[in-house]
Amino acid sequence: MTSASDQKTISILGSTGSIGRQTLDVLTGLDRPMRLGYISSNTRIDLLEDQTRRFRPYGVVVRNEEAFRQFRATTSFSGPILCGDEGLQEAAAWEGNDMIMSSLVGFAGVLPTLAALQRGTTVALANKETLVSAGNVITAAARRHGAVILPVDSEHSAIMQCLAGEASTAIDKMILTASGGPFRETPAAELRSVTRAQALRHPNWSMGAKITIDSATLMNKGFELIEARWLFDIPVEKIDVVVHPQSIIHSMVEFCDGSVKAQLGLPDMKVPILYALSYPERVRSDFERLDLAAIGSLTFYPPDYERFPCLRLAFEAIQTGGTAPAVVNAANELAVSAFLAEKIAFYDIPRCIEEALRKIDNVVDPSLDDILAVDAETRGFVSAMVN
Amino acid sequence: MTSASDQKTISILGSTGSIGRQTLDVLTGLDRPMRLGYISSNTRIDLLEDQTRRFRPYGVVVRNEEAFRQFRATTSFSGPILCGDEGLQEAAAWEGNDMIMSSLVGFAGVLPTLAALQRGTTVALANKETLVSAGNVITAAARRHGAVILPVDSEHSAIMQCLAGEASTAIDKMILTASGGPFRETPAAELRSVTRAQALRHPNWSMGAKITIDSATLMNKGFELIEARWLFDIPVEKIDVVVHPQSIIHSMVEFCDGSVKAQLGLPDMKVPILYALSYPERVRSDFERLDLAAIGSLTFYPPDYERFPCLRLAFEAIQTGGTAPAVVNAANELAVSAFLAEKIAFYDIPRCIEEALRKIDNVVDPSLDDILAVDAETRGFVSAMVN
Repeated sequence: MTSASDQKTISILGSTGSIGRQTLDVLTGLDRPMRLGYISSNTRIDLLEDQTRRFRPYGVVVRNEEAFRQFRATTSFSGPILCGDEGLQEAAAWEGNDMIMSSLVGFAGVLPTLAALQRGTTVALANKETLVSAGNVITAAARRHGAVILPVDSEHSAIMQCLAGEASTAIDKMILTASGGPFRETPAAELRSVTRAQALRHPNWSMGAKITIDSATLMNKGFELIEARWLFDIPVEKIDVVVHPQSIIHSMVEFCDGSVKAQLGLPDMKVPILYALSYPERVRSDFERLDLAAIGSLTFYPPDYERFPCLRLAFEAIQTGGTAPAVVNAANELAVSAFLAEKIAFYDIPRCIEEALRKIDNVVDPSLDDILAVDAETRGFVSAMVN
Repeated sequence: MTSASDQKTISILGSTGSIGRQTLDVLTGLDRPMRLGYISSNTRIDLLEDQTRRFRPYGVVVRNEEAFRQFRATTSFSGPILCGDEGLQEAAAWEGNDMIMSSLVGFAGVLPTLAALQRGTTVALANKETLVSAGNVITAAARRHGAVILPVDSEHSAIMQCLAGEASTAIDKMILTASGGPFRETPAAELRSVTRAQALRHPNWSMGAKITIDSATLMNKGFELIEARWLFDIPVEKIDVVVHPQSIIHSMVEFCDGSVKAQLGLPDMKVPILYALSYPERVRSDFERLDLAAIGSLTFYPPDYERFPCLRLAFEAIQTGGTAPAVVNAANELAVSAFLAEKIAFYDIPRCIEEALRKIDNVVDPSLDDILAVDAETRGFVSAMVN
């Protein structure tokens, strides 16, 4: 038996999304259970209602105002019910939290993450856009408040695992693996006319729509590159990308002596989720085990920056620095929405981003306000382009 | 500049062999140089003479008595010159050593390794037979005298690197990779008649003759299995072997959460040598870097215990325990010599070992004397079989 006082409390921002639901699954399987603080959804209030009954959180947040009103009118949940971005920030900063899982989608993750870090709360970070847009502000806040950021995606979790017991001075290179997405072998001419449905068919990972499109354009890998730069405080020149269609090697670190360490596993987000929840320990899981002899072959290719200009744009943005990554993030978010709404074509996504990068002035060493302003400006600019 | 008092001293037992020569190369390239204590050879006195001039050791050992006399008569080396197994033990136990590299071939490695450990000296262990024959005695001596054993082969070095920063309680499995040797795809019928020259053609690693034959029979992997059991104090049931012809993943550890860590690199023994010499730090090397996109593909197969009975025999011996692994080692050593002398066929190697295991009584929890006795008895038995 674990005494109640040992129990840690976690809030899950974005509990009805793919990572949020898997986090709830992982929590259920823990030998040493954690208490559930806030959970949240944007609009999926039926699932949220179901989660309140099954997992008995302390409170809930409904981001969308209309959905919030509907939820409050119909729910049997008796704890605090918060609304909107303010509600998410309040839940993130709640004093009961030992940890938050930030699995919101898009730029919406920035302020709640910051709110948690400013209270010194550990953040398990599944929201890529937070570090992509506001890496300097977020990591500075974590340092200032002694808060820990634990990455929850397979690549950065792999790198963190490879770095255990190693000196940061011994790192020569981080090598992110990329599945290559559904269009790994699609010629550029065909890519011009791929449909929403084709782009949503990811070969290895089952994920939300936004990140699946980002995987098809390789922008997802570009974001991970920017995230790695901030998470591990490493110059982008020391980060490489290698295409590895099987998604078994989740990423690698090359050390100064020539040795390379890798973390491997079946493509299952529950492994990095569990690693973040149990860090710095490992806890037993019953997840399916890797059997390399059964898999037979792992293959590797250099990435194609011509067919996948989003990856190149991300590289260029983090090299430029300042607000350039925030522009890329906001432009990408709008362009992907437009692609999902079948308003623009596949290659219009990088075209929107490139245009935005050209038009919007870069702010060196930006404050949070600078980033928010550039984010809004970019959205306005790209919105006008795609509508 | 490094002050002389910071300098560590290393003796290399077996300096004219493959690992010994590479160790001298690695030492030459270190930013923070180490002093050279003793170096040694069995019979290669010309190379030994050359090494004394180039590397200026404190002393030398010539194991073979005839070669020793010849060396002493002709050398210009003015330091101590020791002879025979006693000389090797004296050099291993020399008070000037901070570390020894034990790169002797075969059972000859046992007593010098023990002599170093009993003085609390760190042993970089490239000699497999030491732990295979006398694992219980060797590891008990290391524990008793607080001495560290650092593995110098790519597989155990890989495992040690994967274990950095991890709790031993989190280890679920160690997965040794095996190149599969030159006969990975050779049908059993053809294996019956393979020649010495065919067996000496290893696809990936350039090594001495004994270990190259052990790689062709997969006994080398069987020995590594036994070594892993002792080095990492893990039950043999938790050790797996997977055939990986490219020898890029050097071995892996599976943890209780389902995550797997691997160490990778080009097949170059200098990497594990450097890791042992610099442990627990890593130091910069100019060794060629791994480029997975250039390599393209890594493949994996289950091992074939039918075609490679030596691997099965090693598994069985470590499960039996006691002196069974010492019997396997001694029988294998004699049988491989006989195969190299073209006195017996390829499949006579496992046949000799199986016969010896059947005939020679097992001693549970053996002392060093028990092991020495069983070793001698096995040699007599197999010698009679092959001559």
